[in-house]
Amino acid sequence: MNSIEIVDRASLTQGLYRELKLDPRQTAIVAIDMHRGHLDMEVATMPAQPEDARRVIANARAALDFAREAGVPVIHVILVYRRIPGLGSEGMVSPFWRALHAAMGEKDRLTPGRNSTVCEHNIEGTPGTEIIPELRRDTDYVIDNKKRLDCFYGTDLRALLDTLGVKNVVLMGINTNTCVLNTAFTAFNFDYRVVVLSDCVASMYGDDLHVLGLQNVARCLGWVITNGQFYEKIRDGAAAVT
Amino acid sequence: MNSIEIVDRASLTQGLYRELKLDPRQTAIVAIDMHRGHLDMEVATMPAQPEDARRVIANARAALDFAREAGVPVIHVILVYRRIPGLGSEGMVSPFWRALHAAMGEKDRLTPGRNSTVCEHNIEGTPGTEIIPELRRDTDYVIDNKKRLDCFYGTDLRALLDTLGVKNVVLMGINTNTCVLNTAFTAFNFDYRVVVLSDCVASMYGDDLHVLGLQNVARCLGWVITNGQFYEKIRDGAAAVT
Amino acid sequence: MNSIEIVDRASLTQGLYRELKLDPRQTAIVAIDMHRGHLDMEVATMPAQPEDARRVIANARAALDFAREAGVPVIHVILVYRRIPGLGSEGMVSPFWRALHAAMGEKDRLTPGRNSTVCEHNIEGTPGTEIIPELRRDTDYVIDNKKRLDCFYGTDLRALLDTLGVKNVVLMGINTNTCVLNTAFTAFNFDYRVVVLSDCVASMYGDDLHVLGLQNVARCLGWVITNGQFYEKIRDGAAAVT
Amino acid sequence: MNSIEIVDRASLTQGLYRELKLDPRQTAIVAIDMHRGHLDMEVATMPAQPEDARRVIANARAALDFAREAGVPVIHVILVYRRIPGLGSEGMVSPFWRALHAAMGEKDRLTPGRNSTVCEHNIEGTPGTEIIPELRRDTDYVIDNKKRLDCFYGTDLRALLDTLGVKNVVLMGINTNTCVLNTAFTAFNFDYRVVVLSDCVASMYGDDLHVLGLQNVARCLGWVITNGQFYEKIRDGAAAVT
Repeated sequence: MNSIEIVDRASLTQGLYRELKLDPRQTAIVAIDMHRGHLDMEVATMPAQPEDARRVIANARAALDFAREAGVPVIHVILVYRRIPGLGSEGMVSPFWRALHAAMGEKDRLTPGRNSTVCEHNIEGTPGTEIIPELRRDTDYVIDNKKRLDCFYGTDLRALLDTLGVKNVVLMGINTNTCVLNTAFTAFNFDYRVVVLSDCVASMYGDDLHVLGLQNVARCLGWVITNGQFYEKIRDGAAAVT
Repeated sequence: MNSIEIVDRASLTQGLYRELKLDPRQTAIVAIDMHRGHLDMEVATMPAQPEDARRVIANARAALDFAREAGVPVIHVILVYRRIPGLGSEGMVSPFWRALHAAMGEKDRLTPGRNSTVCEHNIEGTPGTEIIPELRRDTDYVIDNKKRLDCFYGTDLRALLDTLGVKNVVLMGINTNTCVLNTAFTAFNFDYRVVVLSDCVASMYGDDLHVLGLQNVARCLGWVITNGQFYEKIRDGAAAVT
Repeated sequence: MNSIEIVDRASLTQGLYRELKLDPRQTAIVAIDMHRGHLDMEVATMPAQPEDARRVIANARAALDFAREAGVPVIHVILVYRRIPGLGSEGMVSPFWRALHAAMGEKDRLTPGRNSTVCEHNIEGTPGTEIIPELRRDTDYVIDNKKRLDCFYGTDLRALLDTLGVKNVVLMGINTNTCVLNTAFTAFNFDYRVVVLSDCVASMYGDDLHVLGLQNVARCLGWVITNGQFYEKIRDGAAAVT
Repeated sequence: MNSIEIVDRASLTQGLYRELKLDPRQTAIVAIDMHRGHLDMEVATMPAQPEDARRVIANARAALDFAREAGVPVIHVILVYRRIPGLGSEGMVSPFWRALHAAMGEKDRLTPGRNSTVCEHNIEGTPGTEIIPELRRDTDYVIDNKKRLDCFYGTDLRALLDTLGVKNVVLMGINTNTCVLNTAFTAFNFDYRVVVLSDCVASMYGDDLHVLGLQNVARCLGWVITNGQFYEKIRDGAAAVT
């Protein structure tokens, strides 16, 4: 198969958009793996496409600044791996990632057309684990013990969201079709309202999976909106409160 | 956007296929939502496409018969909802599904071009909750308290897999891009080897999202194989034991 | 050591009691393992002491009838084990229970002075898995896939509580120091208000551990109250609403 | 009630002791809340009894040195709380701890006869969150995002144990009847072999709950052994390997 027709669900998503309400007091942004290991081409071990990195950083900066201003908390969740004696990165117990390294040729990386490595990715203490500085403020919350694709797995994200009184989880980050989508699934399963900011996500796995990741959220489990739509919904939500 | 080019990763997936080994003693099939609520057009409240239903039932029957013969356990996981006074289906606390029902016009269903309803889907005691009889044997295991998209969430699936000594989780069922994909994510996160049987899955949400689900698994977290490839891998795995 | 002095914390628990408010609309009873496998001496494989069984059944019946009348939902959670080929009860993968069976002499049971068996306990389809009939009504909720000590582990209890809007979890059942205490810990960790009904719990492991369970809850994580105190708090909570 | 008779189960626990095998390659120590917030009277906000602190630190140091020498990994798990605007410590969403602070008189602390505070306990950046220096080595693993009583809840402890190939979880730390006991329950539920080192645990809640916590583990879910017995079992386990 070479190309695939996207089913037109505009009527469905427009109807859902009208139903979306975002009270800023019940909303948080979860920024996923916005670290140099994906986004800074100097040090990235699992790099996004450079133009995606630029786009996502610029748009995320705008959305995060808006959110903080509106009183919406920002939670960064990033993957960091310990180095374990006799194993290497603790990620290397994953059967898929082990198979990938065993099979790996020059062109057989997770990142089509670009070099990458799981086993050296985001080891604790390395530069890749640093959150992109312009996306981070001192008042943000940071969860830095994500170990697989789901931001909820093995972390205190759910406890933090509930402590903050959050009902609406707004996702941004890398990659649209893995960590963002997996976190969207779990947030859906936990009965949060799930929003993905399309301007602030990208996939290192290919544009097709980026597009299909967004389609999957918008048609099966949540809302995919632009920065501009996000601002509008938060302003409407704030106005409804007063 | 109307159509999207699928990135060619044949070299990657072929290399990974060579690395795949399936010892039948460490393998189980998880059959997801193979119930009449999706697959029997007479009673389905969230119907797959009829031709998909026929294809999936026929292929799943063959794969399950082969598996049982090879000593591979079969675990059915199905969604069943209680009816709660004052709420209706317990699924109706989901903000997305509530919005969907609020927005719903004639054509704005989760199932493009076909009627469907979340709020009457698979209520306990209704015919939709029955597993397709030809896919079920008395020796199969059944988990019938799935409540959202992930077969692991709120169930004892992980405990059962570990009790059975399973390392390789082979998925089939409905829908490729939701319950199958979400379960694949979680199985990946838990360090199981994840296999999806492409002949035995389908999506009621559209063929594009079916393709997404398979591409996403094959390129990011596991293996997508045909029934024939599954049989070959299990036979090779059995031969390697003796 | 033969006997131990219980630290007097009456001032602490009295102060806490004054703070306890139970709105019936945010309260549920979780009745733990109130099945014949513990409470009916005819068939019990892990029997409570007979006089405890009589006391707990009588008091639980009264508390449950009161709760249903007050609109407080009742959720039964019970342990049921599959029989797995080559293993026996699926409980027998537990290293502690395996060691117990290996070490077991006539007097070395979990139940001091009474016979009992883990490996034949509450196998699906056996009479032990039946909830004591006088404690069950058709409107009660039943979760029958508990596998270890914690009612939340591998079940949809948390999802059900949240669907029902529950903030206050009122526990009763068997055993005070294991399933009740473990469930109290998890409910505390999930930020529910935890109440244990002292008239409706008992331990097959010995009266000392029954007392421990209650002391541990009352001094570290929740409230231990009598049936009479429960009725008073629910009546006060109902009155505060109107 | 003032004093309680401890049921004599020596025959049971002796039989279980004979069954206990500890292969050092499948064993890890989980050291729970061994921080200055419990153990350093200069800064402790929830202090153990001073004599307990001295005993536990000395014995834990010996056991940890032995373990590292034997190749048994050491995992520290400690509670650290964020300070949340408008709430204070993130622990203060707990209904029990809120009630405790509301009810609190001079003598109505969790710690009988000693002052303590939940709301100022182990806020991130404060000295209380520091692990007792003599118990920590650079090669130890540290999990510092525990939020409630269970070391597994909201942390990656289970993933780390499985990555290390651990089957036997050896617990030490504070408090015997809360964090240690709750972690013992969850480790039991996850089918780990659970061992508590009696020389290396204590309770700030009272000696009665310390004793009963140990009785509960030894008679219902695992093994309670001295440092000397631990050394013997590890030596036997190492010898059995070669």
